[in-house]
Amino acid sequence: MSFTEFPSRLLENAVNEFASLPGIGRKTAFRLVMNLLRRDPEEVKRFGETLVKLHEEIRYCKICNNISDTEICSICSDKNREKSIVCVVENIQDVMAIENTRQFKGIYHVLGGIISPVDGIGPSDLKIESLEEKVRNGGVREIILALSTTLEGDTTNYYLYKKLGNYNLLITTLARGVAIGDELEYTDEITLGRAINNRNPYQQ
Amino acid sequence: MSFTEFPSRLLENAVNEFASLPGIGRKTAFRLVMNLLRRDPEEVKRFGETLVKLHEEIRYCKICNNISDTEICSICSDKNREKSIVCVVENIQDVMAIENTRQFKGIYHVLGGIISPVDGIGPSDLKIESLEEKVRNGGVREIILALSTTLEGDTTNYYLYKKLGNYNLLITTLARGVAIGDELEYTDEITLGRAINNRNPYQQ
Repeated sequence: MSFTEFPSRLLENAVNEFASLPGIGRKTAFRLVMNLLRRDPEEVKRFGETLVKLHEEIRYCKICNNISDTEICSICSDKNREKSIVCVVENIQDVMAIENTRQFKGIYHVLGGIISPVDGIGPSDLKIESLEEKVRNGGVREIILALSTTLEGDTTNYYLYKKLGNYNLLITTLARGVAIGDELEYTDEITLGRAINNRNPYQQ
Repeated sequence: MSFTEFPSRLLENAVNEFASLPGIGRKTAFRLVMNLLRRDPEEVKRFGETLVKLHEEIRYCKICNNISDTEICSICSDKNREKSIVCVVENIQDVMAIENTRQFKGIYHVLGGIISPVDGIGPSDLKIESLEEKVRNGGVREIILALSTTLEGDTTNYYLYKKLGNYNLLITTLARGVAIGDELEYTDEITLGRAINNRNPYQQ
């Protein structure tokens, strides 16, 4: 069925709002709204209120730019974290992904994107100035460039390296290689080639 | 990545709300919230406000139970519609689907579901009483049972027929047959069998 005429303007508005989300078409949006209409009114009201205050109340950590409920996020305010090691990531999803490994004990710097001329995102759209300032103020021993292995990620890495290379610090990047659990047969040749060139001593 | 720890309670709440919708998992919910965070705050606020007032402001037509912005919906209050022909449907999606054909000039009666013992939905959960009352009050010449061709639809049809069969009115059901555009080869045998038995004179 097509949705040319809605019996209610409010219903139409609600469907339009959901349909504005990425990957949600009008049929799905309609189904979601019908689901909300069948639900407890208090529940739906709470959903709406969460969205109303989303932008109003959400904060970004003043130090690392990560999403936070407080002025300084829980990672930056943790005394046990090594403040001299800064892991540079694209967005907060990446922070969460690395946090979930429980392997990293430093702090983060969220760029808020990567350099992508195609999408019109240049260095000035990202939190690069504040990263350089952080480095200039001293105390940073190592910068880990943990960006995607894409053209945009590589471009951003290069730009950051040019910006920060003159300071007295170590600039590292994530290890690249064959993913754990991957079969060699299905590993792409660039990854496999790099993995052979950067081979490590065997450890039992 | 898994989402064990969120950097913000508000973010977590928003993700949980979206993930409570049917067919939306936690990863998709997270992606949707991140999209909202990148959008204009006013836009997201309006989205939230639409949901806040969804249950508060939405009304159901007093006559047909269809969703409406007014007490009597635009179909029931349309003087050109034939009020003596009532098309019984499961939900408002079905009203919209039939309206989109522009073939029906009567009015509707939305049951709000179909009898489904498996889901614990009995006749008393549906708007059947008000349908019978409508018939009892007179003025209804024909009832069209336009329910799904499922076990539940057939059960509801049978129940309604038993309820309304004693009144002086015509009870009809949608024509069943091979869908327009369908190839015979791929039509299921029950539909095809019915279509042969209920064959019509050829019209040029």
